[in-house]
Amino acid sequence: MNAELIAVGTEILLGEITNTNGSYLARELSRIGVDSYFQQVVGDNPQRLDAAITTAEQRSDMIIVMGGLGPTPDDLSKQTLAAHLGLKLVTDAAHLAKLHELAKRREHALTPNNLAQAQLPEGATPLTNHNGLAVGAMLKQGAHTYVLLPGPPREFVKMVDTELLPLLAGQEHQLLISRTLRYFGLGESGLVDAIKDIIAQQTNPTVAPYIKDYEVTLRLTGRGDNEAVITKQLDALQDKINAVLGKYYYATGADVTLASVVVHELVRQGQSVSAAESLTAGLFQATIGGVPGVSDVFNGGFVTYSAGAKAKLLGIAPELIAKHGVVSEETALAMAKGTRQRMQSDYAVSFTGVAGPDELEGHPAGTVWIGLSGPAGDQAQLFHLGGSRNEVRIRSVKHGLMMLLRALQQAQK
Amino acid sequence: MNAELIAVGTEILLGEITNTNGSYLARELSRIGVDSYFQQVVGDNPQRLDAAITTAEQRSDMIIVMGGLGPTPDDLSKQTLAAHLGLKLVTDAAHLAKLHELAKRREHALTPNNLAQAQLPEGATPLTNHNGLAVGAMLKQGAHTYVLLPGPPREFVKMVDTELLPLLAGQEHQLLISRTLRYFGLGESGLVDAIKDIIAQQTNPTVAPYIKDYEVTLRLTGRGDNEAVITKQLDALQDKINAVLGKYYYATGADVTLASVVVHELVRQGQSVSAAESLTAGLFQATIGGVPGVSDVFNGGFVTYSAGAKAKLLGIAPELIAKHGVVSEETALAMAKGTRQRMQSDYAVSFTGVAGPDELEGHPAGTVWIGLSGPAGDQAQLFHLGGSRNEVRIRSVKHGLMMLLRALQQAQK
Repeated sequence: MNAELIAVGTEILLGEITNTNGSYLARELSRIGVDSYFQQVVGDNPQRLDAAITTAEQRSDMIIVMGGLGPTPDDLSKQTLAAHLGLKLVTDAAHLAKLHELAKRREHALTPNNLAQAQLPEGATPLTNHNGLAVGAMLKQGAHTYVLLPGPPREFVKMVDTELLPLLAGQEHQLLISRTLRYFGLGESGLVDAIKDIIAQQTNPTVAPYIKDYEVTLRLTGRGDNEAVITKQLDALQDKINAVLGKYYYATGADVTLASVVVHELVRQGQSVSAAESLTAGLFQATIGGVPGVSDVFNGGFVTYSAGAKAKLLGIAPELIAKHGVVSEETALAMAKGTRQRMQSDYAVSFTGVAGPDELEGHPAGTVWIGLSGPAGDQAQLFHLGGSRNEVRIRSVKHGLMMLLRALQQAQK
Repeated sequence: MNAELIAVGTEILLGEITNTNGSYLARELSRIGVDSYFQQVVGDNPQRLDAAITTAEQRSDMIIVMGGLGPTPDDLSKQTLAAHLGLKLVTDAAHLAKLHELAKRREHALTPNNLAQAQLPEGATPLTNHNGLAVGAMLKQGAHTYVLLPGPPREFVKMVDTELLPLLAGQEHQLLISRTLRYFGLGESGLVDAIKDIIAQQTNPTVAPYIKDYEVTLRLTGRGDNEAVITKQLDALQDKINAVLGKYYYATGADVTLASVVVHELVRQGQSVSAAESLTAGLFQATIGGVPGVSDVFNGGFVTYSAGAKAKLLGIAPELIAKHGVVSEETALAMAKGTRQRMQSDYAVSFTGVAGPDELEGHPAGTVWIGLSGPAGDQAQLFHLGGSRNEVRIRSVKHGLMMLLRALQQAQK
């Protein structure tokens, strides 16, 4: 089975919005074994959409029209597809009831255009829209399957995940269960390379790696007819992967971040953290500061960008910095210890290094010492990080979070 | 004239990368009067690309193939287009010389695949690649114009801006001059609304608004045959826009940021800055810390997340906080003054407020006081910011930068 995706929207053609729906759906389809060889984008124009559908029919089994289900006069995907197939539009009673209920709750009247959003080509299977008013649809005619999906990404993604994919999988009487594993470590492409044989060998469950924000996410998806069996297969696959990548694994979950995992572990253990930042200039603290509830475990800390600020704010002897340099194990340790003492926190993390683009004290850009002071003692690690000034700073923050997470995990053993 | 964009790449079809090139080019083409009614995406497959080109020829004047010019065996766009048109591939001498020179400088040998990157269909006009090894091409055959562009966005955007668009404009003996104006203020869509009549009335120069990162960017593009005339038209249009939006204008330039403008103004005036951050938790300092050269004007500062940290690190009397609250003009001013004194900086910025999601001291999420202490005195401003926790923090940082920029500009008057 192969699918052709047609994105409808003049604002996509004009580049006012980027077609992220197409990427998302293509990726999800490929994971359940549906190939897609062609995609098209057309404006809000019935003739051109009709032509695009005709083109797609000549080369693809399934034609998925994305967008153009809204209430405005230029939203004509449903009407165009129905006319193309010689079908009438009929109102889906369940969806209409939902629209009426919603209007009642929000105290506004339904317009005729709103009512049209409950329509679908006769004979089509409705796809529930959990995040919006336009119902989706799937139908078969001849050798082709046709699908209508809404354009707004929040509505689109939800309908793909909860309606379309299970329906496609269900046509083969299958369940679909996904699990997201998260990794951070030196070299994202290296992490993926390390398990490329596992990825290549897997057919069920599948492993889809994504590299984003200097991290690797693996989405494991299992298919079958028995939830317990699929879960067991996912567990086995996760064990197999973590036998290789366990050192870099930090959490399972689609919505977690490294910072949220660290903050929640601090909260769970009732431990507090502070920081002193040189090259990262506040980015570590701003990152944990982004997690709701962080105030239970974080009072504040220091940005000590210059050597003078390190001496003045953290009480580091100028002689120590003069002797070992700003970019040194000694300075990183002194920063962490000084911060922990001054903020009276359980843990303190320190960052000192060369963000670039220029070198510093003879060290090339990307040379970073991260210090950690905690109940179990003090440590400092040296990193040689690649990338631009900003990449070096972001990677430094993540390594600091990872060191803190490992220390917290160690403390529980 | 209308153009059809064909993005080539299995990784786009599979959703591993999003087709941002298509959005970018569609937008730029629309601004020079080239419509695009259809876009296609195909994998790295010569037969399917050939079919896509045939489809495009039936409905479009210009066919622009994006991607597939790289050195790997699956990069076949150039070969496919040449075969489709019955043309031989020939080596572009100037580009080949550039490849040899580059290889010499980087001390590596050129592979046969690299050499192929200097080839283009015979008779084609080469498009210089300023950021990569693959030459682009444009050629005419019959009623159609064909364009080959590289896939990596850094190479693609540069080639579109400096080669393709001027060439297309030049075919009509026209010059094309663009200017990017940058604005930040309360409510991005409000800023665009305030000049929507100007945008709608303009045909030359055109005004294209983009909203990104809570800022508004206006790209003005003038066409004509005389540089001085176009520049004068752009100046007049800029004056007209800034008569409405001047309060929110902060710089002209495609590559500047609010933080870089502030840091460069500090450097120019020989003034230093420090900060004390509560809800932003280090994000202001991390943001200016991202600008190379910031060490000349920034020694460091404080993250004072809790009331205790404000008292301890900045010497604020606990009674003042108890009386007025953490989220108050008095606390913001005391934070800024205390920081300026402790860091001995010329300016100090302070942030205290409610990032959310929960309210604080009876203030709703988004209530933010920003303080500024400087040579001309002390001030504090109250903001009511919308959005998520993270949006409130980013907007706060930008408002703090804007307050500092205005103070620096005022000091020069």
